[in-house]
Amino acid sequence: MSVCLESPVPMKKISAPKGMRDFYPDQYRVRLGLFRAWEESALNHGFEFYEAPVVETLELLQRKAGEEISKQIYILEEKGSQHLALRPELTPSLARMIIARQGELSFPLKWASIAQCFRYERMQKGRKREHYQLNLDIVGESSSLAEVEVLGAAVLAMQSLGLNHNDFYIRIGSRTLLSALFKSVGIPNAHFMACYLALDKREKISDDEILELLAREGISKDDSGRIFDLLSIRSLNEVRSRLGGVSRAGSALDEIDSFFESAEELGLSDYLSFDPGVIRGLGYYTGIVFEAFDRDNRSRAIFGGGRYDNLLSSLGGKTMPCVGLGFGDVVITDMLEELNRDPVMGKTLEYAVGFMDVQCRPLASKVASRIRQSGLGCDLGLSGEKPRKFFSRANRLHAAHAVYIGPSELKSGRLGVKNMADGEIRAVRFDDSTDFKSLVSAG
Amino acid sequence: MSVCLESPVPMKKISAPKGMRDFYPDQYRVRLGLFRAWEESALNHGFEFYEAPVVETLELLQRKAGEEISKQIYILEEKGSQHLALRPELTPSLARMIIARQGELSFPLKWASIAQCFRYERMQKGRKREHYQLNLDIVGESSSLAEVEVLGAAVLAMQSLGLNHNDFYIRIGSRTLLSALFKSVGIPNAHFMACYLALDKREKISDDEILELLAREGISKDDSGRIFDLLSIRSLNEVRSRLGGVSRAGSALDEIDSFFESAEELGLSDYLSFDPGVIRGLGYYTGIVFEAFDRDNRSRAIFGGGRYDNLLSSLGGKTMPCVGLGFGDVVITDMLEELNRDPVMGKTLEYAVGFMDVQCRPLASKVASRIRQSGLGCDLGLSGEKPRKFFSRANRLHAAHAVYIGPSELKSGRLGVKNMADGEIRAVRFDDSTDFKSLVSAG
Repeated sequence: MSVCLESPVPMKKISAPKGMRDFYPDQYRVRLGLFRAWEESALNHGFEFYEAPVVETLELLQRKAGEEISKQIYILEEKGSQHLALRPELTPSLARMIIARQGELSFPLKWASIAQCFRYERMQKGRKREHYQLNLDIVGESSSLAEVEVLGAAVLAMQSLGLNHNDFYIRIGSRTLLSALFKSVGIPNAHFMACYLALDKREKISDDEILELLAREGISKDDSGRIFDLLSIRSLNEVRSRLGGVSRAGSALDEIDSFFESAEELGLSDYLSFDPGVIRGLGYYTGIVFEAFDRDNRSRAIFGGGRYDNLLSSLGGKTMPCVGLGFGDVVITDMLEELNRDPVMGKTLEYAVGFMDVQCRPLASKVASRIRQSGLGCDLGLSGEKPRKFFSRANRLHAAHAVYIGPSELKSGRLGVKNMADGEIRAVRFDDSTDFKSLVSAG
Repeated sequence: MSVCLESPVPMKKISAPKGMRDFYPDQYRVRLGLFRAWEESALNHGFEFYEAPVVETLELLQRKAGEEISKQIYILEEKGSQHLALRPELTPSLARMIIARQGELSFPLKWASIAQCFRYERMQKGRKREHYQLNLDIVGESSSLAEVEVLGAAVLAMQSLGLNHNDFYIRIGSRTLLSALFKSVGIPNAHFMACYLALDKREKISDDEILELLAREGISKDDSGRIFDLLSIRSLNEVRSRLGGVSRAGSALDEIDSFFESAEELGLSDYLSFDPGVIRGLGYYTGIVFEAFDRDNRSRAIFGGGRYDNLLSSLGGKTMPCVGLGFGDVVITDMLEELNRDPVMGKTLEYAVGFMDVQCRPLASKVASRIRQSGLGCDLGLSGEKPRKFFSRANRLHAAHAVYIGPSELKSGRLGVKNMADGEIRAVRFDDSTDFKSLVSAG
């Protein structure tokens, strides 16, 4: 592709890339509220943050991606010897970084990242061509407390956004337990993969269509009936009674029992619901899997994840137990909007300072400097303006307090500090002892 | 390009993209310190944050980029109707976003963003193929207080990183003033562009080579001498005396005079140094330009920018005065490292909690929950471990305090809270009134 350098002449406006978002300041504030909730919750649970380039080698990305994702990867035109692409997910980069230092790092490690990912998809509700995702991963730990800890951090993030167990719940399943259940009712091993594939579509297509899919794979009507019957199980006691003497489900049952115990100890029980039918895609997860949903089932999964113990070895590293959780920004932002709940906004501006003309500028600059030096945010007008224009700007900037310098302030050395919420104006003498910080906390 | 889905078999490790950085947790903490300094300083000065996609249409990026940058753009293979690429800089996206809402937005606006940008370049010190850049822009203001305000925010960021006027300085020039100076000594208008081009290389090549470049452009030896003589000017008074009666420099002189006045009022004078030879590339800046350098001239410019009044109109918008500043993460991080000054690190972990075995887990979980609920960060061990292993992990995680639960703690209900800095252990009764927050502030 040749590069054309035209001289800059006025011409048609250039549009944004389709399916990708601009964040104007008002949208950015919402995003920042979400990111801060994610960040604080991960730090609160002892995760350390890391980041990898949004560009990776195509080889790495394809090695991990399923066929559907592979088709959606944005590939870069070749430059140099490496064939590069935009990441559709962060996990391959995580695996690459860990494998590169697998001998030096101390395990288990708990890593978190907020990563932008790109997929070329048909646009629809809850799907864009880029999104940000909080990734929480615990690498090197086989105890199911690992699953509980990633969930604990995600639940805290939801709570910080004002959502609790009345708003969402988490479906908990287990790949190994589901296999044991299939086995217990006589489904042949050879049919397991086809069953997973069909059941994974449960949120998208009707039960009749799933039955059809199963029939097409050569699964008998009786077996399909047994499978659907298993999916109605909602407690581990029922699993235990169904499995009866099938001892080979022992470790899968122990694992999920211990998961629910730890979750209870950490106060998460109200959020959890056992559901053997949680699948979450294929060929990646190896143990407990989970998905969080709106109680009103308004949308796609809010977050999800599970145990994936084979990833590192599949990419050339040593085998290590891993647990991961992905929490995207699009579904949760839509959900908060529908519920009319704003995420906590970013920090607001404490002061706006304006002035009438160039004679008033030095005093305005002095006031702004003093406010800024005390650690408070302050916008300073850039040229002389009428009071009306200034106060309307202060309002638009969401400033908590506004100070206008005109000739009378210049003459008297007294300032009027206007509280923008209630309109009250406090007269303050401006000298070296003026404490703008206490004015804010008093206001 | 065809997508090959191999079955995951153990194979060679996959390398990272060349010239792009992984941020392991220790590196991420440094980066976070820098980003927080940027963010806080921009907010302190009343900037609002925004963000645009890292992917833009190639058309937009090329329209703004000079020839050198255009060759370095990473282009995406076509998907759909838009031809996309990775941004080499944020300014085209800023212009696109403003033009799209030029009728609705209130001006002047002060926008900030921390944006990752990509350029395919030969790697060398201070240059990678991606970097993050703080962008500060003021759009819609012709007063030179705009230049001062972007500089004020950048200087505050440097101060937050522990650097002051003994460590760096900012060279201030003016395109229009330089033209007036050229004119005053009789350089023909037709030679101005060649002069800018040659002088812009001053940091990279010797004065002899520049003289050669000027000669090749048909500039006489006498004229070259006059040009170099102008570049030695270091004060506005000298400019005034040189220009004497040349009235057409009036507005350029007024502008830069007013710039230095405002800078004085806002306490920036110690950082500024007038230097008519600052060029900063071609065909983009239209007025005052500036560049910050290490006092020891160790590296490339730390940050730079200036007034660019033609960008919006060149991209299809209405003409509007603009001032911008770019502050990359690579040069400043190298500089801090060479000076042995760490940027303020991200938040540290307040507590690590570990336990000996599964009997001790419930109490450990309870303690961790209580700490987390009080808003403090806490890492909880994921399985039973010996004290020695636990405390070494707590140390590696930079935890401020560590609590280990063994059988004796379980029996007594008393915890030992170890201060990891001085090794002191405080015995604390654990019940509903235990205040982990006050333990931290007391420690």
